[in-house]
Amino acid sequence: MRDVAIIGAGMTRFAKYPERGLKDLSHEAVNAALEAADLEKSALQIAVVGNAAAGLTTGQECIRAQVILRSMGIDKIPMVNTENACASSSTALQVAWLYVASGMYDVALALGVEKMYSADKSRAMSTFSAGVDVEELRQIMEQLKPPSEQKSGGESGAGRNRSLFMDIYAAGARAHMVKYGTTKEQFAKIAVKNHNNGSLNPHAQYRERYTVEEILDSPAVAEPLTRLMCAPIGDGAAAAVLVSADVARRHARTPVWIRGTALVSGSDTRSEDVGTAARAAEQALDMAGMTIGDINVMEVHDASAPAELLLYEDLGLCKTGEGGRLIDEGVTEIGGRIPVNTSGGLLAKGHPVGATGIAQAFEIWLQLRGLAGERQVAGARTGLTHNGGGMVRGEAAATTVHIYST
Amino acid sequence: MRDVAIIGAGMTRFAKYPERGLKDLSHEAVNAALEAADLEKSALQIAVVGNAAAGLTTGQECIRAQVILRSMGIDKIPMVNTENACASSSTALQVAWLYVASGMYDVALALGVEKMYSADKSRAMSTFSAGVDVEELRQIMEQLKPPSEQKSGGESGAGRNRSLFMDIYAAGARAHMVKYGTTKEQFAKIAVKNHNNGSLNPHAQYRERYTVEEILDSPAVAEPLTRLMCAPIGDGAAAAVLVSADVARRHARTPVWIRGTALVSGSDTRSEDVGTAARAAEQALDMAGMTIGDINVMEVHDASAPAELLLYEDLGLCKTGEGGRLIDEGVTEIGGRIPVNTSGGLLAKGHPVGATGIAQAFEIWLQLRGLAGERQVAGARTGLTHNGGGMVRGEAAATTVHIYST
Repeated sequence: MRDVAIIGAGMTRFAKYPERGLKDLSHEAVNAALEAADLEKSALQIAVVGNAAAGLTTGQECIRAQVILRSMGIDKIPMVNTENACASSSTALQVAWLYVASGMYDVALALGVEKMYSADKSRAMSTFSAGVDVEELRQIMEQLKPPSEQKSGGESGAGRNRSLFMDIYAAGARAHMVKYGTTKEQFAKIAVKNHNNGSLNPHAQYRERYTVEEILDSPAVAEPLTRLMCAPIGDGAAAAVLVSADVARRHARTPVWIRGTALVSGSDTRSEDVGTAARAAEQALDMAGMTIGDINVMEVHDASAPAELLLYEDLGLCKTGEGGRLIDEGVTEIGGRIPVNTSGGLLAKGHPVGATGIAQAFEIWLQLRGLAGERQVAGARTGLTHNGGGMVRGEAAATTVHIYST
Repeated sequence: MRDVAIIGAGMTRFAKYPERGLKDLSHEAVNAALEAADLEKSALQIAVVGNAAAGLTTGQECIRAQVILRSMGIDKIPMVNTENACASSSTALQVAWLYVASGMYDVALALGVEKMYSADKSRAMSTFSAGVDVEELRQIMEQLKPPSEQKSGGESGAGRNRSLFMDIYAAGARAHMVKYGTTKEQFAKIAVKNHNNGSLNPHAQYRERYTVEEILDSPAVAEPLTRLMCAPIGDGAAAAVLVSADVARRHARTPVWIRGTALVSGSDTRSEDVGTAARAAEQALDMAGMTIGDINVMEVHDASAPAELLLYEDLGLCKTGEGGRLIDEGVTEIGGRIPVNTSGGLLAKGHPVGATGIAQAFEIWLQLRGLAGERQVAGARTGLTHNGGGMVRGEAAATTVHIYST
């Protein structure tokens, strides 16, 4: 395998854009990435495009890459559409990396894009349902209801589809509270940290700061989750230009190298086994010849605040059961030993699902180039992204971990 | 790049299966491929799954690979969902090849699957619309109507969505007739040949033989196309097991090597330039160190009979304008100099779009192993598959060509 570097990345601000489509959002991100890489679009040799649900949300079920890129004058080159639910574009990043690492091409575009917001609420929401086995959807929904709601048969509150994943996260959070004494306040502190970080990020969907009390007082979603502990609905795109070492050394002053990459699937035997985040991190770190202690900054899949706390443990930032202590001690804040989700994470930066994976890579690229402004992690030389997609039996169906260094 | 071989392949019969879903069809194909490869499912290290439109036809918009494979006990390993409309699974084949050729994994599964048939006709038909830029759909439809229908505003006959691609093929056929004197009878002879071949293939959706007259007398679709010159709606799955040279030499008596692979996109400047089939074939043959004259048997994307005739020219089997002569002379029949679509092609074997690319590879694998029974091409040592997906401005949005040899 050859060394591969990201020499340019870009993204739209994540937001609800009623008036913007897949093309418009993608063009902004691709143009920003090309400009950062100082390359013309004619330099691109392959494009890999991740998107989760444009078939449902926009009707563009097929050839999304070709439709999007052709409309900005990029054609003829090979284009691969990848899908892995919320991990669609981190999967695209791995496939683009592979096309370059293998020697097949020297310059690759990886793009992630998603249109989730819709005036027609039923249309936007349905994207969440599609991240699971649809045949099992009803069965899972019943199992994940808190005991008091089971067999009631009723839909509790608005947006049951919206909160399917949140039901799963809530169940995991409740189990952690019972087993390790983790508190609601500790989950809320994750949200406080990420909203603080988001307030420093011009690309973030939400830029407000909140206190622990404000997080806890926001509308309830599923005990112990409140709305401000859950990633919002949004639209957006993110792109990265990946090149071979030869091109990187000739063309870029500060290439950000992809040192390790792993993609794993969930399983039905989660309880007997290590989860997807731990498995993916181990593989990617092995490939990079690093340990988790070597990482200076990371973006992880905080679709809910408790998810980030559990990931501290799964990724090995602390021992199992000690995630609460880690957030209490400020270890994962900017300025702490290992800052997590400096971008604001999915909670504040937003989570247009197919765009998220490459948006995470964009944040690490900024941090490792020293371009992260007010949220810069001093001296960051290494980074990690963790992105999960879909759900099988309570764990991510698809999980990626990528490792980066200058 | 390392050498990569297909050591097992399998497929369902293509058909309308009202009672079978994505999982059931896929399991049959995967189990057949594993059995042919003499491998357990636990030997698989990566899976790449191509599907075009299950989001629209079944509601399973996301994580199709994970949902399908987990339900047969395949989990944990990396899974990538690829989509390129009718070229979805030939794209999956390239990506699976890349994971092995690069050295990342030694044993890969490539799977293509599609559910097109639906009792709800509007649902099945909509898959065709999704293979173009949906925003341009109406505009294209108007341009492609024969002059007599333009501006009439009416929908001609049943299934306008169904015949969108056929309108495009029909326009190309009419242009060829005007320019080169090609006849309806010559197009019909393509259909006669492929239906003859399909009658010898137990996996073919249609196994009837027809005369030129019967082809021409079948219901009109779009001048000069009749129904028997168009690929049918169907369901099915096809799978292949790809392995590194080390595994192949240890494990398989007759590996079928992938010698070349190309994926290209269409462009808006088709008229000034060479088309996707010619560009992809040139790249794949170059990679294989071969010319088109070295190929013994090929499967090409005959979604309509005229498409195959035009492909003779684009792929270099004859000069431009001489496709009609080639079919008249029987060159592409079994027993001819270069048999084309021995499986029956899309016309007779069927065309469940996301399954087609790997079904083509399955036919070449059979032929090169000498397992094609009554339709065996004597002494076939080399093969080619050509698969096109979607449409931009009258040419395929995504086109693959793969080259195989024993």
